[in-house]
Amino acid sequence: MNDAHILPNWLAHRAAVLPNQPALLADGARWTFAALDRWVSDMARNLLMRVAPQDRVALLLRNRPEFVALAHAAPRAGITLVPLNTRLSAPELAWQIADSGARLLFYAADTAALAEAAIAVVPSIPLAQADDQPQLLRRDFNRRQLVAVEIARLDDTRVPNAALRTTIDLAEPYTIIYTSGTTGQPKGALLTYGNYWWSAVGSALNLGSHADDRWLAVLPLFHVGGMSILMRAAIYGIPAVLHSAFDPAAVNRAIDEDGVTIISVVSTMLQRMLEERGDRPYPAALRCVLLGGVPAPQPLLEACAARGVPVVQTYGLTETASQVATLAPADALRKLGSAGQPLLPTALRIASAGIGEVGEILVRGPTVMRGYINRPDQTAQALRDGWLYTGDLGELDTDGYLYIRDRKKDMVLVSGFNVYPREVEEVLCLHPAVLEAAVIGIGDEQRGALIKAFVALRPGADATAETLDAHCRLNLAPYKVPRVYVFLDRLPKTTVGKTDKKQLN
Amino acid sequence: MNDAHILPNWLAHRAAVLPNQPALLADGARWTFAALDRWVSDMARNLLMRVAPQDRVALLLRNRPEFVALAHAAPRAGITLVPLNTRLSAPELAWQIADSGARLLFYAADTAALAEAAIAVVPSIPLAQADDQPQLLRRDFNRRQLVAVEIARLDDTRVPNAALRTTIDLAEPYTIIYTSGTTGQPKGALLTYGNYWWSAVGSALNLGSHADDRWLAVLPLFHVGGMSILMRAAIYGIPAVLHSAFDPAAVNRAIDEDGVTIISVVSTMLQRMLEERGDRPYPAALRCVLLGGVPAPQPLLEACAARGVPVVQTYGLTETASQVATLAPADALRKLGSAGQPLLPTALRIASAGIGEVGEILVRGPTVMRGYINRPDQTAQALRDGWLYTGDLGELDTDGYLYIRDRKKDMVLVSGFNVYPREVEEVLCLHPAVLEAAVIGIGDEQRGALIKAFVALRPGADATAETLDAHCRLNLAPYKVPRVYVFLDRLPKTTVGKTDKKQLN
Repeated sequence: MNDAHILPNWLAHRAAVLPNQPALLADGARWTFAALDRWVSDMARNLLMRVAPQDRVALLLRNRPEFVALAHAAPRAGITLVPLNTRLSAPELAWQIADSGARLLFYAADTAALAEAAIAVVPSIPLAQADDQPQLLRRDFNRRQLVAVEIARLDDTRVPNAALRTTIDLAEPYTIIYTSGTTGQPKGALLTYGNYWWSAVGSALNLGSHADDRWLAVLPLFHVGGMSILMRAAIYGIPAVLHSAFDPAAVNRAIDEDGVTIISVVSTMLQRMLEERGDRPYPAALRCVLLGGVPAPQPLLEACAARGVPVVQTYGLTETASQVATLAPADALRKLGSAGQPLLPTALRIASAGIGEVGEILVRGPTVMRGYINRPDQTAQALRDGWLYTGDLGELDTDGYLYIRDRKKDMVLVSGFNVYPREVEEVLCLHPAVLEAAVIGIGDEQRGALIKAFVALRPGADATAETLDAHCRLNLAPYKVPRVYVFLDRLPKTTVGKTDKKQLN
Repeated sequence: MNDAHILPNWLAHRAAVLPNQPALLADGARWTFAALDRWVSDMARNLLMRVAPQDRVALLLRNRPEFVALAHAAPRAGITLVPLNTRLSAPELAWQIADSGARLLFYAADTAALAEAAIAVVPSIPLAQADDQPQLLRRDFNRRQLVAVEIARLDDTRVPNAALRTTIDLAEPYTIIYTSGTTGQPKGALLTYGNYWWSAVGSALNLGSHADDRWLAVLPLFHVGGMSILMRAAIYGIPAVLHSAFDPAAVNRAIDEDGVTIISVVSTMLQRMLEERGDRPYPAALRCVLLGGVPAPQPLLEACAARGVPVVQTYGLTETASQVATLAPADALRKLGSAGQPLLPTALRIASAGIGEVGEILVRGPTVMRGYINRPDQTAQALRDGWLYTGDLGELDTDGYLYIRDRKKDMVLVSGFNVYPREVEEVLCLHPAVLEAAVIGIGDEQRGALIKAFVALRPGADATAETLDAHCRLNLAPYKVPRVYVFLDRLPKTTVGKTDKKQLN
């Protein structure tokens, strides 16, 4: 009877119990759970015409209803999704596509050029060697079989009547989401259905679950923060309200007119919403503003408190299917700068540190990922004795409230996106004129932070900020591109000869 | 990383996150989560002075705060609870105590006489032979070590500082609750922490979970319906409002004055509540009346609909840690007599029957018990291919709504309690004057049903209804005792010689 990991397909369950309840609102269109359920089954059969169960399917899609249908089609077809960040450069995307071993890539008209550019680069990416990995984490198929399909070309009318899965095995892989580290290439974090399920349950037990809830999905669906909203909506039986891009006026309108009760945003979004809103109060029905990317700026929190905006700050990770800890609105100012306490299924501790001491944040529980695909060493380093070593530094106060002191050592959070200086530095060093480079984050009122680069050129070489900017734009997602350049003869060094970033600011 | 079954202790989690939130209201007293947490730790240390982890501890207690403290102390001490039905007779209790292998029995002043009478009988109970059972289901210790302790004698001031468990392993056994079958002795259903956890999660995803919820526990805590309320309250972080016995006026008052938003009742209780209430409407804050023991009488449902009482009918079992399926208030009259649709973590099907055909109800999912202790044959019969064979008969309509057609073939539901005719018949046949006996349920407006007995006496023997009534009262819980006797020369038989109950009414 040890089948506690086999559940009925949750979207199908909701379609059976609440067939006429809205499931998805997007761009003026709406799907009930019954309608979404039918579309998803067609989509799953469509998938099975092109790939086999266990295959990986990459999505290069902005927020759009087809993303939602594909997200729910995956468990019925038995495939694993690889949602790609549409803001990445073609070389970055090519690397992730190749690493994931995806056999099929979906794109849309607005990502077609990017998809084409990425696909052209894929064959030049060397494959990682990782034969000692368990099967779920291993890429063991030929990336030359990659097929790209524009989502609008899918024809639902000719799908065969293939058998679909009716249950969801929580232990099975669901998504591979790439996350950059302080060193080397991005790593594909493998999340299971169970990771998302437990994350959704933990959030419901923390924030409550109301029959009239509607959750706004304006975060990108390729990000774990967006994807997890889709899962919660289906598991709770509530509508997801999908926005294709962040527009503060549209979000404010959705709160007024579409009955949105919960939104997930990062600080810069919330700031712009408040500015757009002016003096008009938010309706009481807006019961939770889940704010990622802690710590949030104090003036923003004070503005929200003054206007009665119920901000729930949260600390989350790709590797934990989003939320790990949250801070309730009542504590927002009392515990200023805190990420609150862990959600029920999750345990949290600070490695080798007492109360009030800073150490690495460790997380344990059923939301923790299976591992990084093709990266046995980094998986073994991240997952030890049942704990996830997050790389983030934090401390706990005497009440057990978490304070994040440094995210992944020198990670910079730009508009809610992680930027790892090392990655930018490596791209800068690829330019023939650059001898060495160091990158830091500097405060920015609107985006939280900006990237600032310190560069030493090779003797006799010639390069301007404009040259390097063009080089970076070709190789990096726009939010990773440095906005400020400082040219030095040489970078300051520590006594052991490493670049001394403490001297750079 | 396969530790999806290890969670932080959920009461401790709530005490950390919501220390000042009320956790328990009982008899005018109240405990916050922090206060309950402290009491529970003392109780767990108290337990470890008397028993060892893995031991089984029987409770012969009516609803009282100590029961709540013991229920939460169990996971910290690592013991398994055996909640006993305080309405059973001493011989019935002795059998269950012996079968469970409990080493410690808690009783209170109001159950002391019953406990004493039961303990006196324990040594005469033969032990079942069940050496081929897995360890968790096997009784492998000596019942002669049974110690009985009056709960008032526990001294919290002298407990040693024993180490307590801080996590809950969902795979571990939590309670053994006895349930009678159509044949033979009652069976001890072993439920794990996971069974209760998933039941609580499934209920929250179905009924929603509000920060201001308060759940009234007036069902006996020794019953899975009462016990599961305690688990939900701790897991959701809401107060349980505990009543020591059912008093319709007290329940109505708790709804008005204690902010109760959800109550779990059976039909007869709800009927009496409405009668006591008269014309006074219920407050809108009462958002759910979870009604067990389907199907409910139509006049009762109509009265509730007319008065806006939000009745959620439910079909549940001891073997599934309570709720399996529920019917939303909106469907109460549209799907009259239905138990609704299964909760999300649960799958349900009708054995070898199409839509609209009656068959045995099968249930699958993480709420299904581990098995019956000491009963390998009955466990194997109940759990087959991952499905629980409930013994109940039902059918599904085209919308997937469940209709219960017969509970456990000829089980009779008296005031929400299961009575198995076979058990009563066996007691009647123990009387020297009785040759054969057959028992059925007959409708009763107040209790749902009453027990009616048909008896054939031995030639020349002499016994009256009064004689047999006295005999039954000695050996059976009061609700199982026949209220009507019919004396026949011989009982009607089928062509194969079995008693033909269809001719009895």
